[in-house]
Amino acid sequence: MKLRDLGEFGLIARIERAAKRSRASTRGLVVGIGDDAAVLRPPAGEDWVVTTDALIEGTHFRWTNQSARCIGRRALVANLSDLAAMGARPLGFVFALAAPPSLEVRTFDGLLAGLLREAEAHGCPLIGGNVSRARQTSITITAQGSVLRGRALLRDTARVGDRIFVTGTLGGAALELARAAAGGRVRGVPIPRLRAGRALARRPDVGACIDISDGLLADLDHVLDRSGCSAKLDLASVPRPPRFKAACRRVGADPDWLATRGGEDYELLFTLRSRGAARRCAASGPAKPTVAVLSRRLGVAVTEIGKVVRRAPGRRIRAGWRHF
Amino acid sequence: MKLRDLGEFGLIARIERAAKRSRASTRGLVVGIGDDAAVLRPPAGEDWVVTTDALIEGTHFRWTNQSARCIGRRALVANLSDLAAMGARPLGFVFALAAPPSLEVRTFDGLLAGLLREAEAHGCPLIGGNVSRARQTSITITAQGSVLRGRALLRDTARVGDRIFVTGTLGGAALELARAAAGGRVRGVPIPRLRAGRALARRPDVGACIDISDGLLADLDHVLDRSGCSAKLDLASVPRPPRFKAACRRVGADPDWLATRGGEDYELLFTLRSRGAARRCAASGPAKPTVAVLSRRLGVAVTEIGKVVRRAPGRRIRAGWRHF
Repeated sequence: MKLRDLGEFGLIARIERAAKRSRASTRGLVVGIGDDAAVLRPPAGEDWVVTTDALIEGTHFRWTNQSARCIGRRALVANLSDLAAMGARPLGFVFALAAPPSLEVRTFDGLLAGLLREAEAHGCPLIGGNVSRARQTSITITAQGSVLRGRALLRDTARVGDRIFVTGTLGGAALELARAAAGGRVRGVPIPRLRAGRALARRPDVGACIDISDGLLADLDHVLDRSGCSAKLDLASVPRPPRFKAACRRVGADPDWLATRGGEDYELLFTLRSRGAARRCAASGPAKPTVAVLSRRLGVAVTEIGKVVRRAPGRRIRAGWRHF
Repeated sequence: MKLRDLGEFGLIARIERAAKRSRASTRGLVVGIGDDAAVLRPPAGEDWVVTTDALIEGTHFRWTNQSARCIGRRALVANLSDLAAMGARPLGFVFALAAPPSLEVRTFDGLLAGLLREAEAHGCPLIGGNVSRARQTSITITAQGSVLRGRALLRDTARVGDRIFVTGTLGGAALELARAAAGGRVRGVPIPRLRAGRALARRPDVGACIDISDGLLADLDHVLDRSGCSAKLDLASVPRPPRFKAACRRVGADPDWLATRGGEDYELLFTLRSRGAARRCAASGPAKPTVAVLSRRLGVAVTEIGKVVRRAPGRRIRAGWRHF
């Protein structure tokens, strides 16, 4: 069966039924799918966070090397990761699908199941959407969240002296894409670091934060550009997945390149004020945290990879292989 | 110059500069374009309204019969109209563009100028977005607004005895599309009935509300379906633009069909409780309003076209040409 056999209203009804069956939390949802718009009642005194991201067939994914379910999961994760990078809690998402009438309903069902799987896992219900006919399939998602008032994590708030950290490991997603390019399949789905983001938003010593979607060096560069600083990095300390070097060798990929320039890991990069700065910005703030304490509080392993330094002429990032 | 000559980050910077130059109100905007997500601080005690809508080249518009600026304006208006139909005030919109690298920058600039023109007119700033490479151009907009807590206008709240009204006139947009199909150009841009929607959200005698995007009969049917009622309509009373009949005749179109089944006028269809019901639902509510008083309060001419009746077997809408 193809989408054209369902028709527009049949397709919308199918999405509405699936969303209603889904067990994603609907706390804060006043009106979901079926009206002119969705209505949310966010927690009192919180700011609203909005982000949009699209996956286009042929540009961001191919039907041939991953399941429709996996594509759906990745589509929502990219948005949830942006909420995480702001320190926000997800409240719901809307989903605009453009697809050819010849798309198999089975494929569409897989996409939707993947979206709803991540929606349930992270408490972000499907609250509305739009379906259109197009020659090329695309999935545009806009996710809504809320963050403690005035505590959204930003890119332009890194300061000289900040220590630079990343969550998890880097390079795994790029390795998987390299494998897929060599004929393998994409199976893994990154974990949006929502808990870590929320924990960071509560810290008085937090500096800047961004999620790593374009690659460590590119995304750090966005932070430095917006903050007017430079950085010194110790590339040897960049955390990689277990047995990464050997796995890279098997597909002929450069492990250092994948870990520092490969994207789509969706880990968080953040900075913390050094002890003195933290004391100045909040007298009662935490003392310089150890990495072990920080990892426990954020619910994910974190690694210190460098520090923010004064803006220097030339390249914003000075990266070496020796400890700073 | 083509989009490929700008590159992704050049294109984003261009959008950011244009959004900053725009004079759309940014009251309530904490973080706009340039971070992982946008941050809004909505009015205290209001609910949050979210709607998404897409325009796809070849499906919803063609480059050949309207200006890029007109397409941009219509893209935002479709979303603003959904906010109006909920009784919401706009707060900001995000804009996901998918386009081929060969798209002329001049065309893109026209689209963006059209979006920002409507954004200024209705106090709905561009707060974020996403750009992707695609074979086919599409514009997906998600608009955010806020509405008095618990007062969002819904589709499922029409009741037997309600009087049915529409704002403005119907058929003009469909006539313009018929003209364009006959070789003319689309020039008009509908007005989203935001002021009328907000005024309705404050009324204790309001029933249901929807915006007319698919055509009067189709959209009324959505309301009746969700509300479990039927309706009696007087088709002769459906308001049409001046000199409509003659204009339809010139392009060989049926004026009754265009006024009742043509879409995209983006007028509001709403119901009001009759006097007795209004008294029951709010002792202090307004008495049965005259159409003149109602038009003044809503800031747009309104016309009474029928009433909601008990659900009957068969068709939900009984439409005739005589006054009920």
